[in-house]
Amino acid sequence: MLLDRGKLDANLARMRAHLAPFDVRLRPHVKTSKSIDVVRRMFAGEPGPITVSTLREAARFLEAGFRDILYAVGIVPAKLPDVFALQRRGATLSVILDSAAVAREVVDACRAASTRLDILIEIDSDGHRSGLRPDSDDLVEAGRILATAGMLGGVLTHAGGSYACRGTAELVAHATLERGAIVAAASRLRAAGLPCPVVSLGSTPTVSFGRDFTGVTEVRAGVYVFQDLVMAGIGVCTPADIAVSVLSTVIGHHEAKSRIVIDAGWMALSRDRGTADQPVDQGYGLVCDAGGAVLDELIVTGANQEHGLVARRDGRAFDLQRFPVGSRLRILPNHACATCAQHEAYAVTDDNEHVAAHWPRFGGW
Amino acid sequence: MLLDRGKLDANLARMRAHLAPFDVRLRPHVKTSKSIDVVRRMFAGEPGPITVSTLREAARFLEAGFRDILYAVGIVPAKLPDVFALQRRGATLSVILDSAAVAREVVDACRAASTRLDILIEIDSDGHRSGLRPDSDDLVEAGRILATAGMLGGVLTHAGGSYACRGTAELVAHATLERGAIVAAASRLRAAGLPCPVVSLGSTPTVSFGRDFTGVTEVRAGVYVFQDLVMAGIGVCTPADIAVSVLSTVIGHHEAKSRIVIDAGWMALSRDRGTADQPVDQGYGLVCDAGGAVLDELIVTGANQEHGLVARRDGRAFDLQRFPVGSRLRILPNHACATCAQHEAYAVTDDNEHVAAHWPRFGGW
Repeated sequence: MLLDRGKLDANLARMRAHLAPFDVRLRPHVKTSKSIDVVRRMFAGEPGPITVSTLREAARFLEAGFRDILYAVGIVPAKLPDVFALQRRGATLSVILDSAAVAREVVDACRAASTRLDILIEIDSDGHRSGLRPDSDDLVEAGRILATAGMLGGVLTHAGGSYACRGTAELVAHATLERGAIVAAASRLRAAGLPCPVVSLGSTPTVSFGRDFTGVTEVRAGVYVFQDLVMAGIGVCTPADIAVSVLSTVIGHHEAKSRIVIDAGWMALSRDRGTADQPVDQGYGLVCDAGGAVLDELIVTGANQEHGLVARRDGRAFDLQRFPVGSRLRILPNHACATCAQHEAYAVTDDNEHVAAHWPRFGGW
Repeated sequence: MLLDRGKLDANLARMRAHLAPFDVRLRPHVKTSKSIDVVRRMFAGEPGPITVSTLREAARFLEAGFRDILYAVGIVPAKLPDVFALQRRGATLSVILDSAAVAREVVDACRAASTRLDILIEIDSDGHRSGLRPDSDDLVEAGRILATAGMLGGVLTHAGGSYACRGTAELVAHATLERGAIVAAASRLRAAGLPCPVVSLGSTPTVSFGRDFTGVTEVRAGVYVFQDLVMAGIGVCTPADIAVSVLSTVIGHHEAKSRIVIDAGWMALSRDRGTADQPVDQGYGLVCDAGGAVLDELIVTGANQEHGLVARRDGRAFDLQRFPVGSRLRILPNHACATCAQHEAYAVTDDNEHVAAHWPRFGGW
C-alpha cells in the first residue's frame, strides 16, 4: 500500500482552504487511515479533535495524545464500561444515540458509575442509516432526559446519501439538505428550552461542497485525506488526487483473452465495488503504471484472493507485452477506507520511487 | 469472530471420510484460516503438507514447523530471493508457473543461486483464471525446460469455475472436468518423455464432489474447514455447518423501515457479496441468534464501515422488539476467507457461550 505524501498534503490543504472562510471546527474521521502518523499530519501542533468509529480507535489515538474524541457509532450500555475506562485514562469522549429509551439507559449507567458523558443525539438528515428525524417526538424526549442529567452535548448527522450524488449541483443540494436537517434539530431542542452547544454534520462530499455552514459548529469528513475512485465518480476529486495505491506485480498473461494476471486480488484491493453503481464502473480499481500515471483504459475486471485480472474496460484487445511478467502496476482504490483496511502499513513515498517511511495502521475493535 | 470448534472438527472429519477411499494426499489451503492453530487441528501429529497463497503464509507456517509448502500463486523471478531464503530456513517449497518464458527465467535464477526448486506447471482446466490449456504447445515446451534442469515437479490446476455450479450433478461434472484436464496434461508431459510425479487439483467444491481421483496424487481445498454461505448456496454444505460467525450488537431500530442497526458493518463482515449471483442472495450475511440458531428470514441487507442493516429478506415487517438494543446477533459469512481476513483472531467456543481460546491469525504479504 503506497501513500503519496505530496497528494496527501494537497488533499489536506484543499480541505483547510475550503473551510477557512467558515466558523466551523474540522473533526476529521480517523477510520479511513487508522494511522497515528496520517492523523498527526492533519494538525499543525496540538493533536486536534477527532472522530472514531470503534473504541479501539479511541484507545489507540488516546495513547498517542488525542484526547478530544467523538465515538460516532450509536452507543449501547454494554459498551459503557470501556467508554468510562477511556475517560479515566484522560479522554474527553463524546458518544451518540438515537432514542429516548437508550438515552435513559445511558444516563442511568453514568449515574451508577458516578460519571457523566457528552452525548449527541444522532439525526437522520437523508434517510441513509441511523438517527431521529428532526421533527420526531423522540428527539425532544431524548433531549430532555439528557439535559436533565447535564449530558446533552448537542446534535450530529451524517448525510451518507451524499455518496449517491453526481456532480456539483447535486452535491451542493445535498449539503444544504444536511445542514437544514441538523440546524432544524438544534432549533427544535432550543425551542424546548434545551441546550445544544454542538451542531455537527459531515461526510466528505457534503463538507467539500458545503457553501454555507451557518448554525453548524463542527464538520466531520474522513476519506478526503486519501480520496478514492468513488469520490472521483461523484465529482469530489479526480483520479490524480488519490493518494493511496496498491503496488502489484504482473504474474501472467492471457493473450487469447487480452488480459493480464497480477498478484493483487481482493485481499489487497478489498471486495469493495463502490463504483459499480456509478456511471464509470472501475471494476476492482483503476490501473496506473509503476510511476503512478493513470492508464485510463485499464481496470481490474476480476479479483480472487491473491489474483487480479487486468483488462481494458471496453473488453478490446491491447498489447500485453507493454506489461511483461515481473513488471509493476499500481491500482487506485474504489474505496480508500476499505482498501487500506486490507493492509498493515502505508509505504510512504515522496518521489514514487523510494519509500521514505512506513506508517503503521491498526485494525480490530 | 467466533469459531465453533465442534463444527470445525465436523468439517475436517467429513473431508477426511470423503477422501479415505482414495489414494490422494490432502494438501489443505491455509489462506482461509491463516491460523497456525486451525491448521494444526487438521493434522493428527506431524505438520502435514500445506498450500499457501502468499510468501508471508509460507514464512509463518514454516516457523510453526510446516516444511512441505506449495506456493500456489504464479511465481515471478523478483520473488525468488524470498523463496530461496525460505528454502535455506528449511522449507521444501514448490512453486507454480504457466509459461515457457517464465520457466526459462526461473531456471536461470535458480542456477545463478546454485539451488533448485520443485516447479509445477499450472493448468487451466475451466477457463477460470490462470494456467496453460492441456493441449497447448507451451506446456511441453515449459516441461522440457524444467525437466532439463531437474525441476519439473508436475502439474497443478484449480477449477475455480466450480463456484458457479449449482447442485450435485453440476458439481460432480465439474470435478470430472477438472480431473480430466489435469490428467490429460500429465499424460501429455509423460508422452513427451518427461516426468510428472505430482498431479494436483482442487477447490472445495470439486474435491468435495470428486467421485474418482484416478491419476491424481494430491488434492487441495481451503474453505471447507469453515464453510460459508457461498458453499451452502452451491450445495457443498448447509448453513448449519458454517463454523465461523461475527458476533454483533443491536445498536438501533428503524420501526418505520422494519430494520435493525447492528455494530457489524463491512469492516467486520467484509464487502464480499458472493451470494449476490446465487439463487438465494444472503446480502452481507445470514443472521443467527446469540446461540447460533439461524433466523432464516433475516439477512444483513446493507453495510457501512461499522454499521450493518438487518431486515427480512422479503422486505416485510417483523417484530423488532424481539431484538432489543443491546442484544446480540451472529452473522454467518458469505465467504469465510474474506470475512475472517477482517479479524485478528478467532474466539473459539465449544458451547456457544464461553470463549475457550483465542487463536490468532495474521495478514499481510
